[in-house]
Amino acid sequence: MFTKVLIANRGEIAVRIIRACRELGIRTVAVYSEADRNALHAELADEAICIGPAKATESYLNMQQILSAAIVTGAEAIHPGFGFLAENSTFATMCEECQIKFIGPDAKTIDEMGNKVNARALMIEAGVPVIPGSDGEVSTVDEAVVIAEKIGFPIMLKASAGGGGKGIRKITEAKELPSQFKAAQQEALAAFGDGQMYIEKIVYPARHIEVQILGDSFGHVIHLGERDCSLQRNNQKVMEESPSVALTAEKRQAIGEAGIKAAKAVNYENAGTIEFLMDLSGDFYFMEMNTRIQVEHPVTEMVTGIDIVKAQLKIAAGQPLEIKQEDVKMTGHAIECRINAENPAFNFAPSPGTITNLLLPAGGMGLRVDSAMYNGYTIPPFYDSMIAKIIVHGENRVEALVKMQRALAELVTDGVVTNQDFQIDLISHSRVVAGEYDTSFLQETFLPEWLPTVEK
Amino acid sequence: MFTKVLIANRGEIAVRIIRACRELGIRTVAVYSEADRNALHAELADEAICIGPAKATESYLNMQQILSAAIVTGAEAIHPGFGFLAENSTFATMCEECQIKFIGPDAKTIDEMGNKVNARALMIEAGVPVIPGSDGEVSTVDEAVVIAEKIGFPIMLKASAGGGGKGIRKITEAKELPSQFKAAQQEALAAFGDGQMYIEKIVYPARHIEVQILGDSFGHVIHLGERDCSLQRNNQKVMEESPSVALTAEKRQAIGEAGIKAAKAVNYENAGTIEFLMDLSGDFYFMEMNTRIQVEHPVTEMVTGIDIVKAQLKIAAGQPLEIKQEDVKMTGHAIECRINAENPAFNFAPSPGTITNLLLPAGGMGLRVDSAMYNGYTIPPFYDSMIAKIIVHGENRVEALVKMQRALAELVTDGVVTNQDFQIDLISHSRVVAGEYDTSFLQETFLPEWLPTVEK
Repeated sequence: MFTKVLIANRGEIAVRIIRACRELGIRTVAVYSEADRNALHAELADEAICIGPAKATESYLNMQQILSAAIVTGAEAIHPGFGFLAENSTFATMCEECQIKFIGPDAKTIDEMGNKVNARALMIEAGVPVIPGSDGEVSTVDEAVVIAEKIGFPIMLKASAGGGGKGIRKITEAKELPSQFKAAQQEALAAFGDGQMYIEKIVYPARHIEVQILGDSFGHVIHLGERDCSLQRNNQKVMEESPSVALTAEKRQAIGEAGIKAAKAVNYENAGTIEFLMDLSGDFYFMEMNTRIQVEHPVTEMVTGIDIVKAQLKIAAGQPLEIKQEDVKMTGHAIECRINAENPAFNFAPSPGTITNLLLPAGGMGLRVDSAMYNGYTIPPFYDSMIAKIIVHGENRVEALVKMQRALAELVTDGVVTNQDFQIDLISHSRVVAGEYDTSFLQETFLPEWLPTVEK
Repeated sequence: MFTKVLIANRGEIAVRIIRACRELGIRTVAVYSEADRNALHAELADEAICIGPAKATESYLNMQQILSAAIVTGAEAIHPGFGFLAENSTFATMCEECQIKFIGPDAKTIDEMGNKVNARALMIEAGVPVIPGSDGEVSTVDEAVVIAEKIGFPIMLKASAGGGGKGIRKITEAKELPSQFKAAQQEALAAFGDGQMYIEKIVYPARHIEVQILGDSFGHVIHLGERDCSLQRNNQKVMEESPSVALTAEKRQAIGEAGIKAAKAVNYENAGTIEFLMDLSGDFYFMEMNTRIQVEHPVTEMVTGIDIVKAQLKIAAGQPLEIKQEDVKMTGHAIECRINAENPAFNFAPSPGTITNLLLPAGGMGLRVDSAMYNGYTIPPFYDSMIAKIIVHGENRVEALVKMQRALAELVTDGVVTNQDFQIDLISHSRVVAGEYDTSFLQETFLPEWLPTVEK
């Protein structure tokens, strides 16, 4: 096992990783920006090094600076957490060149899964269902019309060389296709010098169901069941649960096996997540793979009893997986709600500030709060607004929902406006209580009728 | 189920009960003394009623006042927690007379188990092993000598009508017996007008092993495994764990069955604990029964997944037990450390005060902190010094120990001296790590060689 690990992240995930390291007897190095001088992760780690100004590009995204910190402190490995450099293959390569273990898959895998066209091709080859669409590139309106009629509307037109939203069109009806295809192709040509397009069916509304994967360096791959993350606002997950109420036992097995197939197609090593969209008829399609730990990993930990961050560290240190697929048991039901420093009454605008009175609703059975907050902590305005994750575990879904309502009601974060009331109302909505929600629910049904409490 | 329950207690256990009630949809009434105006339990409950001055006899022990509060608020039941009125049969009777359900066994059971001579006789009748001693009362030195030689020294001489330490003598050698017997008998006569004595073998050193019992009103009784509470200072438990490393599988089954036999002997209803002493040869003896929830109940909750406080509420409401003995599974290992506001460097003198900076080490997997503290909270000097319970759950004992070390190291309670360092050193001691400790270890081995950090 490593003797020292550098954590290239901040906030609750950095704290979470430091704690896992400490429990494995690993010394920890925190890195922090000038804005994070008083951050809990810097306080809790055995060593802490300032890596630059507040702006992430000059600190948490500053690869040279982070590698220097690892070399200076003698860290043998770097855990990237999520966000920042977690899916940056250049950084993974640089780590390798410095003989520092990047805790995650290798650069090649990050790239293979990071490129969507490539990932899609790999999945088709592996026999994993992908979203219906063109099998290759589409050059002309005529080709586009044939393909679109086969898969059915609505569809998404995307530039093969795309990125940054350029050359993308959502097509709802057949008659829009010819003109929109030409416009998108022109835009792609202008932006990337390449007019090749591809077409994908829009699976919406759907359930967002993802499978947690663990793979070791010996080629063993297991899955830890699924998470349902269909409650989203602007593609940001708001609440996650495991298991998903939308799966039958057969479907659960099928999606788990598809997840393993996907991971094995790239010889996946470390923790990763295969995200699927499941349409309302129950067909599911590969969407993408996240080659890192995810925000919502605790719900899986609560139902399986497996510490995913510790598993990441052990895998990266070359240890084989400690359990077999048949030993993974899901017990009870877990739910996570993300608490963000944001103001739902003002279009969820970020609301950084100083916590003048903090009470985290921990204590009692089946309740976990992952946070880097403390009393008097000032949330800096430079980073993600998530300040805590409340995770509950109950014998069944009803118990978990009630526990979450209790926990959300108890939370106190005086001085900072959060989405606490929004979460309370969301989790109490009859459709959420019934488990009858999909990716459209939050934005198309819940939000239009929701009245935020205007906070002063 | 009840719609409203009054909690006749304070501190973390009151908070624990309020949370369990809330998760069952029960409204809660807190009672508080004048010293507890700003206490968390009073803040969290749906209603809170001041029941008198700080002194416990005038508030938390004031039966009339508490019953009035229940009647005024329309509470249908009272949960007594532990300590205060939890084992007071008069209070249980008064509740019954007011048609308020006392959440615990009935007054008759409390009395039967509260009287030690009586409990011993009941256990003998039920076939539960008791500490060797005189089967009945002993009137003369000659009888005492015969019995003492049969059971072997050291022995304890006790007045049958005893209490308050009167008429009690520890006898280490045979030659001390005649004179000490006469002295103790004289003392008993003078104090109680009754010179009847009884004799018990002293089982020391031993393991203190207790069995958690749940019994419903339909006569079903199950046990939830054991807790090892051998680490004690002045008969106060300091650290508890489950399972006990001192038990073989056969012994575990035997002690569990003995616990059930003991509970069935009194038709036990609700949660209770049968305490046993196990000598170093592995023979165990009934010591006493606690007819209430115990401080250390969370370790059992962590290994069994069963919420004991919720079970208490359901049983009291007349519901049958939800599980059978064969469904109770113990998974992993749990440890609890009690954090007290006391100064180990000054003979563990209570150290009340104001918490100027609080950081509870919650977060991550398998960690629970039950506490009623918050930032800025002033610990009043009138009550028990326990201010938090840190409970960890690991896949195995080593993982649990490491997790506890991590959690204890992270705890911050600026402004108040606690036994935190003492607990850190205790849990790191080679004998505790090896699980090789008994009821003598803490006071006879650990404390004499322990050097407290002198806090300023």
